[in-house]
Amino acid sequence: MNDSFPQGTAWIDGKFVKLSEAKISILDWGFLRSDATYDVVHVWKNNFFQLDKHIDRFFESTKKLRMPCQITRNELKIILAKCVKNSGFENAYVEMIQTRGVSPNFDRDPRKATPNVMAFAVPFGWILKPKDFEIGLDVYLTDIKRIPASSIDPTIKNYHWMDLVTGMFKAYEKGHHTALLVDEHNNITEGPGFNIFCVDETGIITPDTGVLEGITRQTVFNLAIELEINISKKPISAENLKKSKELFATSTAGGIMPITKISGDIIGLGNVGNITRQIHKLYWQKHSDSNWITPINNILK
Amino acid sequence: MNDSFPQGTAWIDGKFVKLSEAKISILDWGFLRSDATYDVVHVWKNNFFQLDKHIDRFFESTKKLRMPCQITRNELKIILAKCVKNSGFENAYVEMIQTRGVSPNFDRDPRKATPNVMAFAVPFGWILKPKDFEIGLDVYLTDIKRIPASSIDPTIKNYHWMDLVTGMFKAYEKGHHTALLVDEHNNITEGPGFNIFCVDETGIITPDTGVLEGITRQTVFNLAIELEINISKKPISAENLKKSKELFATSTAGGIMPITKISGDIIGLGNVGNITRQIHKLYWQKHSDSNWITPINNILK
Repeated sequence: MNDSFPQGTAWIDGKFVKLSEAKISILDWGFLRSDATYDVVHVWKNNFFQLDKHIDRFFESTKKLRMPCQITRNELKIILAKCVKNSGFENAYVEMIQTRGVSPNFDRDPRKATPNVMAFAVPFGWILKPKDFEIGLDVYLTDIKRIPASSIDPTIKNYHWMDLVTGMFKAYEKGHHTALLVDEHNNITEGPGFNIFCVDETGIITPDTGVLEGITRQTVFNLAIELEINISKKPISAENLKKSKELFATSTAGGIMPITKISGDIIGLGNVGNITRQIHKLYWQKHSDSNWITPINNILK
Repeated sequence: MNDSFPQGTAWIDGKFVKLSEAKISILDWGFLRSDATYDVVHVWKNNFFQLDKHIDRFFESTKKLRMPCQITRNELKIILAKCVKNSGFENAYVEMIQTRGVSPNFDRDPRKATPNVMAFAVPFGWILKPKDFEIGLDVYLTDIKRIPASSIDPTIKNYHWMDLVTGMFKAYEKGHHTALLVDEHNNITEGPGFNIFCVDETGIITPDTGVLEGITRQTVFNLAIELEINISKKPISAENLKKSKELFATSTAGGIMPITKISGDIIGLGNVGNITRQIHKLYWQKHSDSNWITPINNILK
């Protein structure tokens, strides 16, 4: 492993190890069939943010995949907290994963495999770095169709990302920051790791179907209600996207991120809009609100 | 690792290891984004079957994923042959894989990762065991839509299998052998690891779009032409599927496999049809035809 290998700690096969030593069998169906689910929670200033919501979704996803997680909520919290503590990170990105595991003698029957739970912590990462907040993201609107819900249930957080990765390549090749995919009706869906929100004269809008039910996406609903801003879920056409007054993306990897350009074309006034600022500000305020956070030291005491 | 762990040899990180020791980093995007491609070739009586065709497709897939394989054809052949030879298998299933690899510092840009090539051999496996040939497969026709080509290019052999695995669970729960998925128009697509063929009064038909361009699928075209049987690609509705005179599945994992029931309902006369038998017989005859096979010892001499 070279020096640029991400620092961090993992929990795998029941043990804590350096992240560079955390490996899975190449026969794990989580790799050979992407038969796995995961969730990512972040830690800011030694506090988990909305930890129980991420664990709720993770447990739900494992049930939907017919492999309900056998680790209890408290055990999982301790594992995640130790991954961060052992790494020495104040701010971190913590991923919990469950794969289908390895089946005896390469048996094709997924019921014969033993599920495999693991977790790891890496330094906190940003899709849009704070220093670039005022510049905002330039998102390339692709014609790639996000894998539809009729094929893969998007409420199960999954690693079926080849469409998103193809979008990222196209965006990078054309000089944009990241990509946005559409659905079969050419309505907007999501990008690699983020949901999207438009602001128009009626308030805030986000796509209703075919997207991950992001925890940060749900947070925006809670924050908008607190701020008394109208918010709704409905289809968004490419045309309406481009006519938005403001646009922002949401992700555990960076929170609330203004989008100022779509495929290089300026959105609204081309700067960070007022509603985006309000949501962003309140989002970060919640990071010191005891109703929203779980101190790592409380889990480990 | 317990006794039931599959026997075999892998090549990974440039070394040959016991399959039970072959592992990849949990940060490999091949795992965390299923950003990988693969191919599977089989070995029968110490001969690879259609090796160059599998390598052609593998190289094509790596190019389409913008990570052209850096290993030459001859190097790859030697790696695959040694995986089999070191395992001591006469009959084997040999998988070659290329993942996007790990990116420095968990960077989201896939261009920064270093692709990771690996391979492994396991004992030859069958979707339908030879002893059950006369019984045939009972395939459950699901209403699950196979991930469409507008999202994931099916000509890139990929691990996006959650739809197929869900189909397998549904089939097993209802007592069938395996599952068949449909497209957005409810036409037939493919099952987990196999293509499907119908026989009607016009000849042999297989779905034209939204399916893996299987090597065994292409082989059936070559065999049918040699047998002077009419064969074509076109959409197949569920209704036409059930009215077929014969049905068969094709896969590297077992070759030509009769399907005698769809969702428990008898197809045709409920036994193995004449055309299926002819294709099956010629398929296995080709396993001793020097135009179709590559002896392992020739590669390693």
